Amino acid sequence: MKEHLQVIKIGGNSIDDPESLRNFLADFHRIKGPKILIHGGGKLATQLANKLEVPQTLVDGRRVTDAETLDIAVMVYCGLINKKIVAALQANQCDAMGFCGADGNLVKSKKREDAHTDFGYVGDVPDGGVNASRFAELLSSNIVPVLSAITHDGAGNLLNTNADTMAAKIAIALSPFFDVSLVYCFEKNGVLLDPEDDESQMPVLNPETYAELKKKGIISKGMIPKLDNAFEAAQSGVKTVVICHANSISNRTYPDHGTLIISK
Amino acid sequence: MKEHLQVIKIGGNSIDDPESLRNFLADFHRIKGPKILIHGGGKLATQLANKLEVPQTLVDGRRVTDAETLDIAVMVYCGLINKKIVAALQANQCDAMGFCGADGNLVKSKKREDAHTDFGYVGDVPDGGVNASRFAELLSSNIVPVLSAITHDGAGNLLNTNADTMAAKIAIALSPFFDVSLVYCFEKNGVLLDPEDDESQMPVLNPETYAELKKKGIISKGMIPKLDNAFEAAQSGVKTVVICHANSISNRTYPDHGTLIISK
Repeated sequence: MKEHLQVIKIGGNSIDDPESLRNFLADFHRIKGPKILIHGGGKLATQLANKLEVPQTLVDGRRVTDAETLDIAVMVYCGLINKKIVAALQANQCDAMGFCGADGNLVKSKKREDAHTDFGYVGDVPDGGVNASRFAELLSSNIVPVLSAITHDGAGNLLNTNADTMAAKIAIALSPFFDVSLVYCFEKNGVLLDPEDDESQMPVLNPETYAELKKKGIISKGMIPKLDNAFEAAQSGVKTVVICHANSISNRTYPDHGTLIISK
Repeated sequence: MKEHLQVIKIGGNSIDDPESLRNFLADFHRIKGPKILIHGGGKLATQLANKLEVPQTLVDGRRVTDAETLDIAVMVYCGLINKKIVAALQANQCDAMGFCGADGNLVKSKKREDAHTDFGYVGDVPDGGVNASRFAELLSSNIVPVLSAITHDGAGNLLNTNADTMAAKIAIALSPFFDVSLVYCFEKNGVLLDPEDDESQMPVLNPETYAELKKKGIISKGMIPKLDNAFEAAQSGVKTVVICHANSISNRTYPDHGTLIISK
């Protein structure tokens, strides 16, 4: 029987509020067994860009990462957020180590090629991009890897990567070695049927219902890439995929908390 | 016989110039055997503080680290500089991993207590502050640790730490397990008898000559804390301590390059 591994992604909004983050980390350190934390960026990078008067360009809601914006992302994600999380976990006797994808070549990516838009220093993780044996080695030393969503191309360049995608790719790559649960934590109770009603989360979501809800416009915007990643993981060997509130990771009991994403 | 370990500290000025840094890293990756790199900060943190209009206070030439200045140091040292170095080394097939002292509890420090001045978030590394077994474990996995000089107090706080001191403490803590060489690299050829004459480096410096040269004012300012750290290391089990130019690490042949610091 394979050991259970939890790959947990904490979203930006839960990081912006210091109390939410503190509570989340207190819950996270209580989770038993091997675990990996992947964190998003929150508003800090945008705030720093504004202060430094580095204009931010969005194309179809997606940020273009020019050289200055990349430096800001690296400073905020790999520096400020990552190290504050690590120090807070260490204070709770959780033996965390903070990484980006360049460290130990943990996650290699490829600069995004798009016929219409140059997204700049943005990297997508190809098949084989995750260094699963290195992750397994760290976990076997009881290290808790804490990852910011910055990767590298192996040629010396850092690249900005979507944190949801990074979590899914890591969960998939580790599935041959562990029974992996991938948990996307954010500021809502799961996939909501009515975005205005926080109690309207679906206990389970399958691809057919997902397609229907997208068609009807009930699931839209930022939820679509998140769910695409979640379904890719569920269909690629990750045993359990859940989308839930950041405050419910310590006592996850399906279907009371969050939405379980199933592969068919 | 113990294995040879090189602990190399690269100073700020060599980091500020991209070409010097590139050349240094190309030389560094060629060094055989286990090695650790510790890097200083350079001018980037001061530049960012100026852009963000965070006033910098110096007391007796030493920077006071308030909360905003600490955030800037963490962003620049642990984020930008550390990850750029790691990505560059990885591109050279050097399996680098970037850390601060909080990561894996590698280096714990204690907030500096000073009767006269509150230096803010500044930490000094006490005896026992370096997690030697964790370093040894990383080195035995052929990982090349790259450290920024930010530490933690174990209670969730990050602290700004002198990079020269951090290098000395790591070298000392690893001396029971390795034959350690500690190499301080900077923009000069070693300890100079005449600061204006770059060819005036001393091949060897012992404590007696050091005391004399300090008394005469020939060695002064920033060199004093660096040399205090160097002598502490030489007197605490570190086998070889050298101060040399960043461009001479690949072909160090004493006494042609740098100044050898000897314990008596």
